[in-house]
Amino acid sequence: METWGRIAHRRWAKTSEAALDYGDPQGTPRLRRAIAGYLRTARGVDAAPEQVLVLSSAQQALDLVARVLLDPGDALWMEDPGYPGARGAFVASGARLVPIPVDEEGLDVAKGEQLAPKARLAYVTPSHQFPLGATMSLPRRLRLLEWAHRAKAWIVEDDYDSEFRYVDRPLAALQGLDTHGRVLYAGTFSKVLFPSLRLAYLVLPPSLVGAFRAARYFSDGQPPAASQAVVTAFIEEGHFERHIRRMRVLCAERQKALVTTCARHLAGLLHVAPADGGMNLVGWLPEGSDDRAAAEAAARNEVEVIPLSALSRRRTKRPGLFLGYSAFRPREIEEGALRLRDALLSLRRHATG
Amino acid sequence: METWGRIAHRRWAKTSEAALDYGDPQGTPRLRRAIAGYLRTARGVDAAPEQVLVLSSAQQALDLVARVLLDPGDALWMEDPGYPGARGAFVASGARLVPIPVDEEGLDVAKGEQLAPKARLAYVTPSHQFPLGATMSLPRRLRLLEWAHRAKAWIVEDDYDSEFRYVDRPLAALQGLDTHGRVLYAGTFSKVLFPSLRLAYLVLPPSLVGAFRAARYFSDGQPPAASQAVVTAFIEEGHFERHIRRMRVLCAERQKALVTTCARHLAGLLHVAPADGGMNLVGWLPEGSDDRAAAEAAARNEVEVIPLSALSRRRTKRPGLFLGYSAFRPREIEEGALRLRDALLSLRRHATG
Repeated sequence: METWGRIAHRRWAKTSEAALDYGDPQGTPRLRRAIAGYLRTARGVDAAPEQVLVLSSAQQALDLVARVLLDPGDALWMEDPGYPGARGAFVASGARLVPIPVDEEGLDVAKGEQLAPKARLAYVTPSHQFPLGATMSLPRRLRLLEWAHRAKAWIVEDDYDSEFRYVDRPLAALQGLDTHGRVLYAGTFSKVLFPSLRLAYLVLPPSLVGAFRAARYFSDGQPPAASQAVVTAFIEEGHFERHIRRMRVLCAERQKALVTTCARHLAGLLHVAPADGGMNLVGWLPEGSDDRAAAEAAARNEVEVIPLSALSRRRTKRPGLFLGYSAFRPREIEEGALRLRDALLSLRRHATG
Repeated sequence: METWGRIAHRRWAKTSEAALDYGDPQGTPRLRRAIAGYLRTARGVDAAPEQVLVLSSAQQALDLVARVLLDPGDALWMEDPGYPGARGAFVASGARLVPIPVDEEGLDVAKGEQLAPKARLAYVTPSHQFPLGATMSLPRRLRLLEWAHRAKAWIVEDDYDSEFRYVDRPLAALQGLDTHGRVLYAGTFSKVLFPSLRLAYLVLPPSLVGAFRAARYFSDGQPPAASQAVVTAFIEEGHFERHIRRMRVLCAERQKALVTTCARHLAGLLHVAPADGGMNLVGWLPEGSDDRAAAEAAARNEVEVIPLSALSRRRTKRPGLFLGYSAFRPREIEEGALRLRDALLSLRRHATG
């Protein structure tokens, strides 16, 4: 925050009159260059700055996708369980959302081809599936790209938390494997910097740039100059990379704290296995449990968790709770786990009592 | 800019962790309170902070209006000539845009009632009609409100440049006269502060708050915290009011410079009459002129003007050029006017030669 404030102040001290004007609806060329450079190195995304659209949030990226690419009645592959924000953006278009199951290799592409072979779009989170956490395997990635090419469908790759990977180098983005210009790659600064910044980006195939640029212009104009300038300097001066490295260590510790504390205090109540990355874990409840009742009991004890069934369209195989850990210090995580234990125990007493 | 930078720096030095989080999709309660207070005093807008939605731009306000209130085929009154940004936002909804003529009293409400009595919405710029500059008369305002009440139609009052009024106190906003909750009032900080800030607001009837809040959330989440905090302090500490007073004097001088310089140098080529307010004037060309050719000739001489016919759906009564003056110093205005004279003279030589 200190570095950020210093850059912001410096920027205002030497800002030009031109920087007060509306600016480019795609975002400043300099920030787009910084984003393209970062994504090339860190994520294997193959894109020129001209393909980058700077937006306020991944939500705005999904909303624009819905408005530009979807017509009422179009079929659309959605991961199930999956991200409700995407559902909220896509459902407004009148498209038909087809839930496709996910497993430990990510989206089940074969199932998608069977349920909706002519879908117009597939929405995926291949780095770290929301909410189950799987990394999409290479064979699945290639099959998904092959289908999109054949079906002339679009793939929206939502890479919202790719920076948080703890065990090894992440698999490169799907976008970098795409040789037919079918992938739209969405990323955000909300997770790796901070949410109230309101900056994100969408990397487009060259064929779509004109349409998205126009849609963006008529929906809200352009992004703010000041925050774009600060993020640009933050990236160019190396603060961004250092910050990511620090956050990665911090979040890995927090994940470990959650796994350890649950193993110690919640054995038999909630099983939490570690994951290769991300900011959340799924805690599995015993078979037959009611995960909505568990989440409500947790809320009464001031622990906010999401029942897995609320993120699913079909019946979930097993009840679970979606747990965020990245915003909490290890001591807070332990306190929360103890309150969650009390909540789950009270529920069990209630059931058997 | 100095004051702005100081507030921004101070804000980062004492910001809280909570201020880094997503925040309220309607905008911070404190900024909404500041906006409601300003609008009450300056514009006679009668609204609680709960009715204010902080957005990135007036364009976003119009886009949300189109998405929440318009269905394909709905009729919609548009001022003719009128603002092309509104056209761009509304046309995407599939609604039927009905051009309604404007005169020196603003939108011709009787004509609207005749052409599309059951329209779902009327878009108006009553303070200072874009682009002709008329202030809507009180009888027209009352008739428009009466029609909206009877027809259960919505009125969108775009008050984009109300701060710039030079001759007297402006007529209060239409919103303040509305006793049936039919008016949505849109305003922006782009004109009175600076465009790259990307903050604007929409004041809603209480019955519409829930729907707009949800639509906003699923289209782009919420506004950025930092710029909201700076604008809040700028208003609360009195800088905003002082800034408006200064800008009003400055823009009045600039308008006067444009009128004077055109009278001196462009007599017989372009007639520019003063207006009560605004940031633009219309320069009238001699009957029978081609205003598009005039604008092209001006562009070749590096003067950017908009031909009135490009802002009109039906044939305009008289050819004219839309001239912005607020961004230029008097000397720049005079230089521009001389270049415009040369452009118009070259055109005349060409026509008679």
